[in-house]
Amino acid sequence: MPRIAYEDFLAQRAEFVSQEESRALGSDVVLNEDEQKVNEYLMTLKKAELEEGFKSPIAFAPSRHFFKVLDQIKNSPLFQLIQKMPKGGILHAHDTAIGSMETVIKATYQKNLWQNGEFGRASPPHFKFSKTQPEPLDAVEWRSVSDVRKELGNEGFDQNLRELLSLFVPDPEVAYPCINHAWGRFFNMFISLEPIVTFKPVWEEYYTNTLKELYADNVTYLEFRGVLPPVYDLEGKIYSPEEVVQIYYDLSEKFKQEHPDFVGVKFIYAPIRAADDSTFDGYLQEAENLHKKFPTFVAGFDLVGQEDLGRPLTDFNERLLKMSPTIQFFFHAGETNWNGLSTDDNLIDAVLLGAKRIGHGFAAVKHPRVLEELKKRNICIELNPVSNQVLKLVDDCRNHVGAIYFSDSYPVVVSSDDPAFWCASPLSHDFYVAFLGLASARQDLRLLKKLALNSIEYSGMSKAEKVEAKHKWSIAWNHFIDQTLKTISQ
Amino acid sequence: MPRIAYEDFLAQRAEFVSQEESRALGSDVVLNEDEQKVNEYLMTLKKAELEEGFKSPIAFAPSRHFFKVLDQIKNSPLFQLIQKMPKGGILHAHDTAIGSMETVIKATYQKNLWQNGEFGRASPPHFKFSKTQPEPLDAVEWRSVSDVRKELGNEGFDQNLRELLSLFVPDPEVAYPCINHAWGRFFNMFISLEPIVTFKPVWEEYYTNTLKELYADNVTYLEFRGVLPPVYDLEGKIYSPEEVVQIYYDLSEKFKQEHPDFVGVKFIYAPIRAADDSTFDGYLQEAENLHKKFPTFVAGFDLVGQEDLGRPLTDFNERLLKMSPTIQFFFHAGETNWNGLSTDDNLIDAVLLGAKRIGHGFAAVKHPRVLEELKKRNICIELNPVSNQVLKLVDDCRNHVGAIYFSDSYPVVVSSDDPAFWCASPLSHDFYVAFLGLASARQDLRLLKKLALNSIEYSGMSKAEKVEAKHKWSIAWNHFIDQTLKTISQ
Repeated sequence: MPRIAYEDFLAQRAEFVSQEESRALGSDVVLNEDEQKVNEYLMTLKKAELEEGFKSPIAFAPSRHFFKVLDQIKNSPLFQLIQKMPKGGILHAHDTAIGSMETVIKATYQKNLWQNGEFGRASPPHFKFSKTQPEPLDAVEWRSVSDVRKELGNEGFDQNLRELLSLFVPDPEVAYPCINHAWGRFFNMFISLEPIVTFKPVWEEYYTNTLKELYADNVTYLEFRGVLPPVYDLEGKIYSPEEVVQIYYDLSEKFKQEHPDFVGVKFIYAPIRAADDSTFDGYLQEAENLHKKFPTFVAGFDLVGQEDLGRPLTDFNERLLKMSPTIQFFFHAGETNWNGLSTDDNLIDAVLLGAKRIGHGFAAVKHPRVLEELKKRNICIELNPVSNQVLKLVDDCRNHVGAIYFSDSYPVVVSSDDPAFWCASPLSHDFYVAFLGLASARQDLRLLKKLALNSIEYSGMSKAEKVEAKHKWSIAWNHFIDQTLKTISQ
Repeated sequence: MPRIAYEDFLAQRAEFVSQEESRALGSDVVLNEDEQKVNEYLMTLKKAELEEGFKSPIAFAPSRHFFKVLDQIKNSPLFQLIQKMPKGGILHAHDTAIGSMETVIKATYQKNLWQNGEFGRASPPHFKFSKTQPEPLDAVEWRSVSDVRKELGNEGFDQNLRELLSLFVPDPEVAYPCINHAWGRFFNMFISLEPIVTFKPVWEEYYTNTLKELYADNVTYLEFRGVLPPVYDLEGKIYSPEEVVQIYYDLSEKFKQEHPDFVGVKFIYAPIRAADDSTFDGYLQEAENLHKKFPTFVAGFDLVGQEDLGRPLTDFNERLLKMSPTIQFFFHAGETNWNGLSTDDNLIDAVLLGAKRIGHGFAAVKHPRVLEELKKRNICIELNPVSNQVLKLVDDCRNHVGAIYFSDSYPVVVSSDDPAFWCASPLSHDFYVAFLGLASARQDLRLLKKLALNSIEYSGMSKAEKVEAKHKWSIAWNHFIDQTLKTISQ
């Protein structure tokens, strides 16, 4: 059989490329004239970074470890444009890892804070707010932080604390050779962080600042996971989970009133997955309780902690199926490199349990039936590209599985998991990495617009809330387009 | 709507898992009773390594750089079993990078070899066989290798040469920060290697030893790519491409006669893709010529060299379509991390040009239409997991895209590309990494059997040749099963 003629080949090729483009996420978005102009500008910036990277791959930020390119990204005009863009909401992030750690560091200047153990040791120091010196811990006396500050100097103390509360190191490949090392440090961070941040005045300050930082990053909706740790005050009061949710609710409402263009907040109760059966029963009871008390604010249920080392969903399926059917599931599943082990089997359970969204879903690409069900059941995958790199699932973000989801319009959102722990902005860094490193060179403003719209579409908001959210977002979006046009034409 | 009952959930889950298993590569293979026993043993070995890795990921060989785990793999009982297994054929490997470099090192003990430049410099030394001292190169005198050997000692010389002819370094992450560094070294290796290996006596020795090493690794068919470099002798004769193919052909026939269970060899003419148009026209003419002269031995045409830096297929499509329609295409395509640039667009051209197989196809997972066509047109992807890691496409082999092809029965084979350059066996290391690191924990002997059978099925052999090949392979396979059963029951 002879080969086809070149003109026919060219026609076939054009058709093929156009079919691929029409399957890509965002291809259904139609841009108006102004948006098209902004898109041209956006694509000029994207192409410049791609061309530079194609010549010298080591210069390409998404291909390298996030910690090595933080400064480079800060100076990227593409990143700066994405920062200004109204990105919709964050649908996957954790209670005490969204807002920057500067609030926590500032809090350690307050009086009544005590420290047990020293910086720079294998076991991290503990902190506690207390009117009087607490009882010794493992035979070690507590010292007043103001005394430690005098010894180290404010700068020295802050720097030590900053290092303690961040995974950032100059040589992450050496410091974290595998996933267990990164998660080990992660765990140590919580030990030091939690009793500072759960002090009620700090708790409130931290949460409010988180919302402010979101707002400054042009993120106007938050749906976050929380373990609801015991918040305490100087009078010895321990706040119940319900009271903690009430604090969240009240502060969210206050922030919304002060910022009418801010859409709002919902909370996903997500306690720790490494739990025995009776602890787990306690979680379920708490979930039912919160669901009744805060039917619209509490969006649903999940479990957190290193998935490989925690218990798989299969241990809990029977109990989970007994929960009130109106409690929605947002399970972490497949946050792993393993294939055919209990961690990626969580994907199967999450799908069959009827999860509304799946956290990470990194391993889903190895499960063809799961992939089918994601589309069929419209289950949204919450992608967290920077988190997946820092926590050792993938080195070069061009290999991130999100590229596959983007290429064939899977229901996805881009989120940020624990941005504060790796010095990232609330959402812009993940959007930048996703747009430049995961997406095809051909994907443009339509992808970014789609991701923002998806964050509303796949949220736990009611239909009416979504209508309002889209309205507010549209106003911000149009303003962004106008402002960008002005900047370009200058 | 209430949630479903737990028993119904369990039934759905079992059905779901079984559907996924039935889609996995190899699931259509039926094992007889003896094979089932060997499979049990095989899976015990696989599970032991997986369980160890699940506890401590840093211990898991496929997750680490190949150079760091060479010794560990050598001691793996799973690897040792895979070595003994008849693996069928190698369908993707390159002329002077399959056989171990020891033949080349041995050849440098021959007289008449000259060296220009020193070891350990940025620019690698050149070598040449010649009766008399060659003319100075860039004003540098040639020295007799026997003199250099006296200076460095045999051990010192051999070690220097060994380092020169291998990408192996103890710290690959530092030595090769990105793909261009690895390929740069790769290129330097060829500069030193080629004039040693293209000396006719060495050329013949090297090729025959390659076949011996294949045979020892239980690989009984070879379909390799070659650039057909000018082979030379001491009398000043330069052998034409046609004569070089004749050498390959004669030595292959001789080896086959001496080893009746060896299936045979085919050759794919694959010159360098970084070529100008007129050089490319020369390639095509050569291809036509070889196709006429060796209609069964020369299986087809491809292009080689770093895909990102070479010319894309699109530059050559018009010319390629003019080639005799009986010349089959086996294009390298998508050996890249880029998405939507010329390198991964090669996949679209390869498919539309009617490629029989695609080399690497690493980027195909980001192209939903390409994925569809692979199945529809039964285009085989030649996976080279170790090569992709060493040449910087992927760090952790659990992230290798082959996992996706395995999960949904794409037409694939596992091959080894340039195993000698990274101290790997001809095929066993890639089979080991694929079976342990890429495949699901659930995939078993059926996958390995399928991969061996695919290497016959997707080869360039005729129908009759395939029948004979399968027959020979079956005998070896049954012998392997018998021998393994004896070892297990001891």
